[in-house]
Amino acid sequence: MEKSVIQKLESCRKAAGALRLSTAERKAAVLESCARLLKDRQEELLAANQEDLKALRADATSAFRDRLALNASRIQAMIESLRQVAALPDPVGEVAEERVLPSGLRARRVRSPLGVILMVFESRPNVAIEAFSIAFKAGNAILLRGGKESVRSVGVLYSILNQALVEQGLPASCAVGITDPNRELLQALLKERRWIDVVVPRGGDGLIEFVVEHSRIPIIKNDRGLCHIYVHEDADLAMAAEIVTNAKCQRPGVCNSMETLLVHRSVKDRLLPVLYTKMEEKSVRWLADAESQAALAGRARVERAQESSFDTEYLDYALNCRVVGSLEEAIEHIEAHGSRHSEAIITASEAAARRFQAEVDAAAVYWNASTRFTDGFEFGLGGELGISTQKLHVRGPVGVRELTSLRWILDGNGQIRK
Amino acid sequence: MEKSVIQKLESCRKAAGALRLSTAERKAAVLESCARLLKDRQEELLAANQEDLKALRADATSAFRDRLALNASRIQAMIESLRQVAALPDPVGEVAEERVLPSGLRARRVRSPLGVILMVFESRPNVAIEAFSIAFKAGNAILLRGGKESVRSVGVLYSILNQALVEQGLPASCAVGITDPNRELLQALLKERRWIDVVVPRGGDGLIEFVVEHSRIPIIKNDRGLCHIYVHEDADLAMAAEIVTNAKCQRPGVCNSMETLLVHRSVKDRLLPVLYTKMEEKSVRWLADAESQAALAGRARVERAQESSFDTEYLDYALNCRVVGSLEEAIEHIEAHGSRHSEAIITASEAAARRFQAEVDAAAVYWNASTRFTDGFEFGLGGELGISTQKLHVRGPVGVRELTSLRWILDGNGQIRK
Repeated sequence: MEKSVIQKLESCRKAAGALRLSTAERKAAVLESCARLLKDRQEELLAANQEDLKALRADATSAFRDRLALNASRIQAMIESLRQVAALPDPVGEVAEERVLPSGLRARRVRSPLGVILMVFESRPNVAIEAFSIAFKAGNAILLRGGKESVRSVGVLYSILNQALVEQGLPASCAVGITDPNRELLQALLKERRWIDVVVPRGGDGLIEFVVEHSRIPIIKNDRGLCHIYVHEDADLAMAAEIVTNAKCQRPGVCNSMETLLVHRSVKDRLLPVLYTKMEEKSVRWLADAESQAALAGRARVERAQESSFDTEYLDYALNCRVVGSLEEAIEHIEAHGSRHSEAIITASEAAARRFQAEVDAAAVYWNASTRFTDGFEFGLGGELGISTQKLHVRGPVGVRELTSLRWILDGNGQIRK
Repeated sequence: MEKSVIQKLESCRKAAGALRLSTAERKAAVLESCARLLKDRQEELLAANQEDLKALRADATSAFRDRLALNASRIQAMIESLRQVAALPDPVGEVAEERVLPSGLRARRVRSPLGVILMVFESRPNVAIEAFSIAFKAGNAILLRGGKESVRSVGVLYSILNQALVEQGLPASCAVGITDPNRELLQALLKERRWIDVVVPRGGDGLIEFVVEHSRIPIIKNDRGLCHIYVHEDADLAMAAEIVTNAKCQRPGVCNSMETLLVHRSVKDRLLPVLYTKMEEKSVRWLADAESQAALAGRARVERAQESSFDTEYLDYALNCRVVGSLEEAIEHIEAHGSRHSEAIITASEAAARRFQAEVDAAAVYWNASTRFTDGFEFGLGGELGISTQKLHVRGPVGVRELTSLRWILDGNGQIRK
């Protein structure tokens, strides 16, 4: 690895040490400074973003272009989110547990920063600000490595972060931008266990797979969401129709939207035609099994699902539909096809709901609500770095507190082990 | 991968599903059955262990032979540890947090099993029982893959685990032994993200590195312990001498023993000669920097430390010694050379202790006590699967509760996202 990169890693590790001792007030002041500087330097940021957009290949999709673009209202949203994170309680130093051991040692488990986080992201430049604010609030230094398409925009953002840090008397290296976009460098960074404590990838399947394949550092993974809603035989069908429509259509491009509807045989004929009509304005495409296809006979946008359909995350106005004969069958389907993100049951029976919630192994399991709520803001975490679908460390939204872990602090008066 | 192995993985994943719903009573009954069967089948187990010992290469060290050997008292210790784990509180289902979201959704974070754990271990056959009991108590199914040297001993242990599970009406596959010792198979297992949720390696540096290199599954790592004790200028020197001797000599072959002594310049001449004499009966070898060497002039077992000495984990009657001029210098040395396991300061000053505990980034940071206490039993966790030196998920002893994580369980009455 180049010496200049090693120096960046060293200075980031050092900054993490200084940050461990920083007060809640100073950290909040840095986030306030960032918010102010974003406003002050808005024109410069927009100009850099225009350059990035101009440099895009002609064949870039409009969705890609939209993710990359900044404008006054997106900058305002970044400013507001910085202020919200600044106002959150500081988790560092929180005592999660306290006990006196038989030897008389007083032991406390104290919430502490993770250290240095490497954030690997794509296209959306505002991720740099979101990721910094949440990681920093939890006392972590951060290495930010965005995609090559946003290099000018994030360059300005990195400079704003550094300026805000220095203004408040903290090392600029609490936020280190890696602007060299080559993958060999990323691959090498992913092996630097000495300098980096945690890697957080956020982006498409290709990026996530690359990081999992090459990293020798622990990862908090923000993976795909293949979410189900199961409508049980005793469900309030009006409620079910509202919830399914919301989970599919309110914002289909996100990971907590529903991809597959499972419906109990005894209600399929009453529910499915109503649902079809309700979602017609969005031209939702149905990939249906034989039974649900029969229940929707004659509708235009219904086609027969393949077995592979049930493993497909559409992130679009399309859904899979399957009829099941029982709660057990629904749970089995989810166990086989779910991504352990968010799952829901619609039922009037508390017993059925509790069984579903106990057996379905996902980060968030809902009874009578839309899967769309799985989100750091909605869950009251004040924001999120992503949504984890792994089981170690954190499941679901990754907020400020989720970027800390517990150390043991022990006070004695000469205890030795017998 | 061979079909027979895939079938094992499938059945283990299925068993994890059944286990998620198992009651605390049934899990405790399984551990009780194991304890009884260990007694009933003791002769068979000892005979198998004799076969393993006979098959050892002639050049196996006596330490290696000792780790592999079982006897009546070691089996009794396994039985007692099973009963202790059985008596622990069951963490599954514990509600760690509860809140009502603005939408009216009732959200709870509920402690849940991790799923399927792959435990990779070496030589000591009793690890199979320890690992199973702790993982199982937390509701996890486990794949056990021991070293080739213990294959006959662990074969009997796996059979005991399976018998106990079936006796209590649980699937035998809650504990699956992998007796094929080849590394290609292990390497393939470490990529089976679909079936395995977490990997726990426990063994020498070579094993840990192999797992980190090849795993694409999250790891809880039990790594080396390069622990320091810093004796501050105002320390009670009698206490310091007791603590340092305990941390070095009570059991030098374990990860929480001290490897490096840091001593403040103003107390070196009073402390070091006393300590040397105190540890003389164990023939402790000193690797000393220039100043501490001078303070120990004329003593036989003192030699000059190299810079690399301070990165060496001896696990033996040997220690590094370095004189420092301040608390800051001690903290800097630990930051550069420590393994983030257990560190201690001996001081009369609470301010110095608090600063040390805040700045030193280790799983356990002691004031006026021996580092030897870092241990699941000592910390009141009822046992441990190992001691984690990573920062994600868990730091320090890995007990029952540390083998769970929190899922979100949400109850609504028709909430949709606006």
